[in-house]
Amino acid sequence: MTNPAPNPTAAILIIGNEILSGRTQDVNINFIAKRLATLGIVLAEVRVVPDIPNRIIDAVNALRAAYDHVFTTGGIGPTHDDITSECIAEAFGVPWEIHAETFAAMEKHIGKENFNAARQRMATLPRGAEPIKNSASLAPGFSIGNVHVMAGVPRIMQAMMTALEEILPRGRPIAMRSVYGIGVLEGEIAEGLTAIQNSYPELDLGSYPFLYGRTTGGVAIVAKGTDEQAIERAIAEATKLIAGLGIEAIQGEPPS
Amino acid sequence: MTNPAPNPTAAILIIGNEILSGRTQDVNINFIAKRLATLGIVLAEVRVVPDIPNRIIDAVNALRAAYDHVFTTGGIGPTHDDITSECIAEAFGVPWEIHAETFAAMEKHIGKENFNAARQRMATLPRGAEPIKNSASLAPGFSIGNVHVMAGVPRIMQAMMTALEEILPRGRPIAMRSVYGIGVLEGEIAEGLTAIQNSYPELDLGSYPFLYGRTTGGVAIVAKGTDEQAIERAIAEATKLIAGLGIEAIQGEPPS
Repeated sequence: MTNPAPNPTAAILIIGNEILSGRTQDVNINFIAKRLATLGIVLAEVRVVPDIPNRIIDAVNALRAAYDHVFTTGGIGPTHDDITSECIAEAFGVPWEIHAETFAAMEKHIGKENFNAARQRMATLPRGAEPIKNSASLAPGFSIGNVHVMAGVPRIMQAMMTALEEILPRGRPIAMRSVYGIGVLEGEIAEGLTAIQNSYPELDLGSYPFLYGRTTGGVAIVAKGTDEQAIERAIAEATKLIAGLGIEAIQGEPPS
Repeated sequence: MTNPAPNPTAAILIIGNEILSGRTQDVNINFIAKRLATLGIVLAEVRVVPDIPNRIIDAVNALRAAYDHVFTTGGIGPTHDDITSECIAEAFGVPWEIHAETFAAMEKHIGKENFNAARQRMATLPRGAEPIKNSASLAPGFSIGNVHVMAGVPRIMQAMMTALEEILPRGRPIAMRSVYGIGVLEGEIAEGLTAIQNSYPELDLGSYPFLYGRTTGGVAIVAKGTDEQAIERAIAEATKLIAGLGIEAIQGEPPS
């Protein structure tokens, strides 16, 4: 078998004072991470930056140079703190200008008398951007080069991500399986786990202690990669490792 | 009144394949963000990187140079994927060596016969590190320079953060107040909000559309900063802006 091409890589850039202030519990990272795994795109980095132009521009340029895809969320609405779109234009060194098709569609939907300057900003895109048409919002996100610009509101972001999935190049899906044991201590299985990891260098083997309730806990062992047979074998070995302690090994994720 | 010193700044570095794979919904960012706001420390950036030495080392060095404090979570347990501690040593260019006091305490607690090589790794710290003593775990996190290294398991991280709060320098607490209106559209208030933001350049004024249920939504306006009187006045103006649309302005956070 020839060596398959490596999976594409990606980063997420969350643009949002509301995450940094603690006002909002982010849920977009987790949603996008799961979707990317299904698409076979390796999520390699996440950054969260405030609504400050230079911080956004620098992060976009660093991440688009380092990874195959960049997904941004936040800052594409009509208010003064929505500056993502003009920052992306600046990052790419292109004009930020009315996108005629979007402008016409928004004007028609909202009505000429209500299509004020603030709303017209949402029809202003970096030159060369392709709108991400979606079912949740008339005002589009957009893709330019390898950067995909989405809303911050989870339901709208999710509709945009779903639309993007139709056009993103895919890799081999990244599969993940886990087994856990209640009462297992990491220090008891560390040596055995190292041996399993060394047998399957193509997989990421993770060990995650968990707690639930006030006093109960254990360890979950997670195997992740693109080779499902290797994952199955590694999980079988991890199952033996837990059973060797006289503890029942349970397939799947621990209770939380 | 003399100009007060600017608040200290901070970054969070989440070290964790489990966040990037989508296996785990992060809750540590939000916990730390809220605590930092109370302490008057400005959270200016978050990064999530995988369990890969160069990625951790590069991120630690970039963030500790850019901000007054760096808080890391994850990767300080006894298993093969717990590499944070040795990466921090490498980032600081110091030896990674047995920390005698921690070693003795762990050996006494665990018992000599069970204090195996994997567990001894947890008593191995960068030279010059100060353990973060905490109520949840014998194996310490640690501080070195301006970097504070904590566990990834939320309950243990929280205990470590609580211990750290005793020693962190503080700024003026960052306060936040919000008002929302159900049925408000951002495009209707954008111009008025810009005017309020311009009147209070010392505050961050944010506008956040929200949805709940299938069809209901609105906009929350959030004022954030260290000047509580300015926040109160800005929120009073935002309240008028919403009321001017004939919509009830409600203080606090919208339902979710």
